[in-house]
Amino acid sequence: MLYNGHMEVIVSLQNAQVKKWTALKQKKYRDETGLFLIENEHLVLEALKAGVIEEIIMCEGVEERFEGIKTNYVSANVMKKISNNTSLPKYIAICHKLDKSINEANRVVILDGVQDPGNLGTIIRTCVAFNYDALYISNDTCDIYNAKAIQATQGALFTLPIYRGDIKDFIYSLKKDGFNIIATSLDDSKPLKDTKEKDKMAFIFGNEGNGINKEILDLSDDIVRIEISNFESLNVAIACGIMLYQFRK
Amino acid sequence: MLYNGHMEVIVSLQNAQVKKWTALKQKKYRDETGLFLIENEHLVLEALKAGVIEEIIMCEGVEERFEGIKTNYVSANVMKKISNNTSLPKYIAICHKLDKSINEANRVVILDGVQDPGNLGTIIRTCVAFNYDALYISNDTCDIYNAKAIQATQGALFTLPIYRGDIKDFIYSLKKDGFNIIATSLDDSKPLKDTKEKDKMAFIFGNEGNGINKEILDLSDDIVRIEISNFESLNVAIACGIMLYQFRK
Repeated sequence: MLYNGHMEVIVSLQNAQVKKWTALKQKKYRDETGLFLIENEHLVLEALKAGVIEEIIMCEGVEERFEGIKTNYVSANVMKKISNNTSLPKYIAICHKLDKSINEANRVVILDGVQDPGNLGTIIRTCVAFNYDALYISNDTCDIYNAKAIQATQGALFTLPIYRGDIKDFIYSLKKDGFNIIATSLDDSKPLKDTKEKDKMAFIFGNEGNGINKEILDLSDDIVRIEISNFESLNVAIACGIMLYQFRK
Repeated sequence: MLYNGHMEVIVSLQNAQVKKWTALKQKKYRDETGLFLIENEHLVLEALKAGVIEEIIMCEGVEERFEGIKTNYVSANVMKKISNNTSLPKYIAICHKLDKSINEANRVVILDGVQDPGNLGTIIRTCVAFNYDALYISNDTCDIYNAKAIQATQGALFTLPIYRGDIKDFIYSLKKDGFNIIATSLDDSKPLKDTKEKDKMAFIFGNEGNGINKEILDLSDDIVRIEISNFESLNVAIACGIMLYQFRK
């Protein structure tokens, strides 16, 4: 480390801390540590409001300060190594994953194998915009702490309770709790306009290419299709947006 | 070139044709030539159906054939240079831009400065799914022939008439033609649920960060907001999906 005025600046790419931070770009290490990185300045402010920031990594020479939060100064070269972006961020926040719990839920979303991080992030943002209570995602859905997914949430990640696990178990437990389980599919389905609002509703959306798994479809109370032209299809986040708007709280 | 059985294979990265094809990754050359590249196999089949393929660039050793379409064989190394993807495609189609015209339109979409190619492509796909007649995009909206935008359209690009230009002119001409011009904005707006269906409707969506320009807002007949929770916002493609579903044909 160099001593630069009042602050020490990490300049070595071989520094143990730098290696740990860089490892957080991989899902494996995010899972192990419960930590993830945020780069976008707007998102860092949202993370600050949500109280999930553990430490800040700041480029040397940047004037901004985060009061009361441990700040590590690094060279531009080190920052480049840690960052996921092509343009150098002023700072990166190391955040801890949320553990939000639900009470009194009556609108939830279930994802069965959504693969695209942009779709996942957009769905999280949409859930928050329409005041949905929670999101349940299958083990093969992409990581919510992926940099692209976080960016697409626009900060909504910090306010929505999200559970990853076996969605069959989630569905059984929601059914016990009186939820009407609605799957979205084009086959053997009734049109959205004929779907009645219920007190407690859970909406399942499937994988971009293959839709919802058959064993999950079989657990649903209703299969609903959004009325589109023949031979066409909708992006999963768009289908989700349309459905969530119809049954918003 | 090497002579390999029945076909000549281009192996040099310095080959003049290879340079021309590679240049099509840039908007400037797409605009100059009216040509663009398609890599995804599903999209190439859609382009084939739409009759917009000029030539095929095929990796040597690939068995597939496109009857009646000029096919150029190249080495994997050349393919890698032309491709936008990290994984090597089997073939790339060089397509010409469409010049589709509208008749009897009564549902159109106008975009004022949408920047993200994924959003633009998803909006094109959604317009086709809900049977909208045309898309008008401002000069500062991103290029529809961008590789990410094309991918997000899922082939819908080949069926929707799309016009780029001064959207003020488009709006004046739509107004003359009896269209009700609806802008989407959170400010000074009425809720979507109170918006009545009209015979001819045009919907304007704005830039991801800044929304619709004031001079464009001032030209609209109604300003409508999608009813979301306070302090939240929707992705522009999601807002478009919800609006287009409500007034689908």
